[in-house]
Amino acid sequence: MRLWNGWGNENSDLLMELNSGLRNLLQALVGPATPLGEATLEQVMAKVPASKAPAHPLISADPETRVRHARGQSLPDWLAMHSGDVDSFPDAVAVPENSEQVRELLCYARDNGIDVIPYGGGTSVVGHINPEASARPILTVDMSAMNKLIHFDRESQLATFGAGTAGPELEAQLQKEGYTLGHFPQSWELSTVGGWVASRSSGQQSLHYGRIENMFAGGSIETLAGTLEIPTIPASSAGPDIREMILGSEGRMGIITEVVVRVTKLPEEESFQVVFFPSWEVGLQAARELIQQRIALSMVRLSNPLETTSLLYMGAGDDSSGVVALEAALAEKGIGAGKVMMTFGVTGSARHCATAKEMALDHCTSLGGLADQAGLGDKWAHGRFRAPYLRDPLGSAGYAVDTMETAVDWSKLPQAVENIESAIRDGLADEGEQVHAYTHLSHVYGQGSSIYTTYLFRLGDSYGQAMDRWHKLKAAGANQIVASGGTISHQHGVGRDHRDYLVAEKGGLGLAAINSLCQLFDPQSQMNPGKLLPDELN
Amino acid sequence: MRLWNGWGNENSDLLMELNSGLRNLLQALVGPATPLGEATLEQVMAKVPASKAPAHPLISADPETRVRHARGQSLPDWLAMHSGDVDSFPDAVAVPENSEQVRELLCYARDNGIDVIPYGGGTSVVGHINPEASARPILTVDMSAMNKLIHFDRESQLATFGAGTAGPELEAQLQKEGYTLGHFPQSWELSTVGGWVASRSSGQQSLHYGRIENMFAGGSIETLAGTLEIPTIPASSAGPDIREMILGSEGRMGIITEVVVRVTKLPEEESFQVVFFPSWEVGLQAARELIQQRIALSMVRLSNPLETTSLLYMGAGDDSSGVVALEAALAEKGIGAGKVMMTFGVTGSARHCATAKEMALDHCTSLGGLADQAGLGDKWAHGRFRAPYLRDPLGSAGYAVDTMETAVDWSKLPQAVENIESAIRDGLADEGEQVHAYTHLSHVYGQGSSIYTTYLFRLGDSYGQAMDRWHKLKAAGANQIVASGGTISHQHGVGRDHRDYLVAEKGGLGLAAINSLCQLFDPQSQMNPGKLLPDELN
Repeated sequence: MRLWNGWGNENSDLLMELNSGLRNLLQALVGPATPLGEATLEQVMAKVPASKAPAHPLISADPETRVRHARGQSLPDWLAMHSGDVDSFPDAVAVPENSEQVRELLCYARDNGIDVIPYGGGTSVVGHINPEASARPILTVDMSAMNKLIHFDRESQLATFGAGTAGPELEAQLQKEGYTLGHFPQSWELSTVGGWVASRSSGQQSLHYGRIENMFAGGSIETLAGTLEIPTIPASSAGPDIREMILGSEGRMGIITEVVVRVTKLPEEESFQVVFFPSWEVGLQAARELIQQRIALSMVRLSNPLETTSLLYMGAGDDSSGVVALEAALAEKGIGAGKVMMTFGVTGSARHCATAKEMALDHCTSLGGLADQAGLGDKWAHGRFRAPYLRDPLGSAGYAVDTMETAVDWSKLPQAVENIESAIRDGLADEGEQVHAYTHLSHVYGQGSSIYTTYLFRLGDSYGQAMDRWHKLKAAGANQIVASGGTISHQHGVGRDHRDYLVAEKGGLGLAAINSLCQLFDPQSQMNPGKLLPDELN
Repeated sequence: MRLWNGWGNENSDLLMELNSGLRNLLQALVGPATPLGEATLEQVMAKVPASKAPAHPLISADPETRVRHARGQSLPDWLAMHSGDVDSFPDAVAVPENSEQVRELLCYARDNGIDVIPYGGGTSVVGHINPEASARPILTVDMSAMNKLIHFDRESQLATFGAGTAGPELEAQLQKEGYTLGHFPQSWELSTVGGWVASRSSGQQSLHYGRIENMFAGGSIETLAGTLEIPTIPASSAGPDIREMILGSEGRMGIITEVVVRVTKLPEEESFQVVFFPSWEVGLQAARELIQQRIALSMVRLSNPLETTSLLYMGAGDDSSGVVALEAALAEKGIGAGKVMMTFGVTGSARHCATAKEMALDHCTSLGGLADQAGLGDKWAHGRFRAPYLRDPLGSAGYAVDTMETAVDWSKLPQAVENIESAIRDGLADEGEQVHAYTHLSHVYGQGSSIYTTYLFRLGDSYGQAMDRWHKLKAAGANQIVASGGTISHQHGVGRDHRDYLVAEKGGLGLAAINSLCQLFDPQSQMNPGKLLPDELN
């Protein structure tokens, strides 16, 4: 069973407590914090109003189910669930088992003027699945029962899955056959293939496996205007690509029911290597050149100096002597304060991995990089899905953690990182509050890179104060993203929280184009209203 | 100066005569043919009616200019120009020098109810730039004067070009800086970057450089609803991708004026290698496995047995003794009748090329392939843009050549090739006419491959008979493409000739989605009417 108000399953091995090392570090960085009280599930259930949805055999209006589908995994969602200050719930939840039931639910919605929220893993961090307060009843359609490998064309390496298949379910079914999708967003344990498509997800090894755009070969989408079947075709010059309209549609156009993905055989080998560089500038040059020279890596990740130090010490826990020794050893080789950490991956045949790793290490070394020999790359791989588990113990200790991310061209990148990070770091200066912010590049492209900034701050005296702080920081960071020429989201999507920033990327005419598609597929604006498009188009 | 009624420039080195070897081969394959008379430019100019377009300083209604913009490079276009039976011309042609002039022309078109055809290199083989007979005046906007590198962000490897920049102009401007786009469709000498985007072009080395979809980073499009600016962003999860609406828009949404493309440094090395396999089945397996194992080649091309033999003998010209010797040598190694020819390319650093070539050759050899040592790969590279030059000398001798192409998943491919090729080969059986048809795969993907069928037949007693034959063959092949689950075009686009087959790929709802975009950008349906969308949506 999923935690009702936090990240993960109740029995997960990754649930954690805050160790005293991290607690001390946070006290030093942003000050001592006081835990706030936490609402219980029963308290939140008591707030659930009577359902406005007319009865139907496929829907449930059970209050607990409605609470469990009311919010995603953004920091505002976490604050709402922990304060108990939840202001909207779906009126009903359905868990269809097949496309026919989805169609039946859409007919029911159309006939009764009900708004519909498609729901995958509920892992959105930007409000994708949150019901907007509405006079119309709201039905959340939870796709988790459609979680099977439906068809596998081995020769064409095409696998058809129910859209509600979560990462581990998907990989288990494929790996049994000797194949993998290789899509590993940080939300992988809980998020679903339909959600990945709807929100244009990108996985940690997108450099090798591609983003979900590259994997999504076709499928079925149930819309209020009918069923959209997208056939699988390797490539086409025949007009605009319909897949690209559904990718990032965020539930506004319909419910994705089946997804055909491009898979590959399980790699012979995979490894991750950490390299330290003496400075951010040199690290950036290395990352850019590795990708622009097309050395075939599966991942390049580069932490800035503050993240490098933060991760080393935060990972050390109660005993930081190892980190101290590592830093001393690096300093001896000229990699001291200001150092940055790169992690790169190689995936594929043994021969490919050996060559690619050698080429990458040669290039890194030529720039003054020093390869880690202590298995830090393995450590990264081991902990690759851990970060989201940190919010709960931090929150219980009175601290908030959130992230902001974008992607920009290389020529704009150094200034963008500085401006975004500074805006967040100084975002609570009016209150005299410290914000600890650090940044990494997680997805690199020939043209530029993603920028991923993590920030920690104190919740304050109340959840309300924490929410105010979040709003200030979000606006400060997002405005800098827009001013830097970045996308409002490289990997989290638009949802509710980014919709008013979208015009900077798409332009008024671009937004009108997206809106015209929404209107076609959903003439009465019943599909996930309030998401993706800005206020004036909702 | 371009040939007014054929492929290429008047002074091109690639203009050719039919050698007697090829003539004899054709006589043997499809029978002796009689040349038909050819209309002169003056005869066609005499057919140009008075212009319906009101005067404007940026337009010309000169008859020769209007003839030169009346048709593209499809076989029907060739037949029309050579017979003189041309039924529609643009009323005027403009050659704008900048975006302001394009905007001015669109205002003029809107204010005067004029239809607009954007025109790049005029190389469409499916009728993209042909005026449809219309009561409204038709203005063709020839983009060839907007042919400069406007901005170059070296660090981000982003180059901004005027949309009318043709392949050689584009590469010359980039290569001067040490960079390349690497986009080499067979039309490269004459086609333009704006045309590539508008028709979703793919180049011969798309395996390394990507299709135009992967290169198109942003740009400007002038539409009747305003200017659409698409900013450059390396990757985004923020909603549907506006670029993907413009890619393949075929002039229906607006005029692309500036294109930002992703470029790379000129490769250290590039080479092409031919390998022979004993059978089509083994060749297919090799092609599929090379790509599915992600061996980093820049091209994989595989000719079926008939194409292998045809190309060898057609390339030999008057003296086929070398081919006879090659076939004997291959037969000695067990590669006899039924043999197929693969050409693969490697592009990049010397180290990369060496490794990739070695891995590919190892795999080919393990399947029974035999590497050519006589430089056939170089010969392919040398002649890579020659094929379109063959139509004129063939036509003058009374023969027609055309191609049909698609892409399908691997599991559907062998049957699709057989069905498409047979349908064409038997397409004139009712007349007792032979059609010589052969096929190659030119672009391979993990999921499947393109299929490219070339066919030769006799023009017959008149251009009218030739056109009837073309219609029969086109319908026979296209129906098999649709029945095989293929796209109606992997690399030529939709235009006029494929529009009625598009519904099989996009579905009714998908077509409605594309139409809703056209309506948004072009509320009065003035942009390239009759193209892309099927009759009932025009």
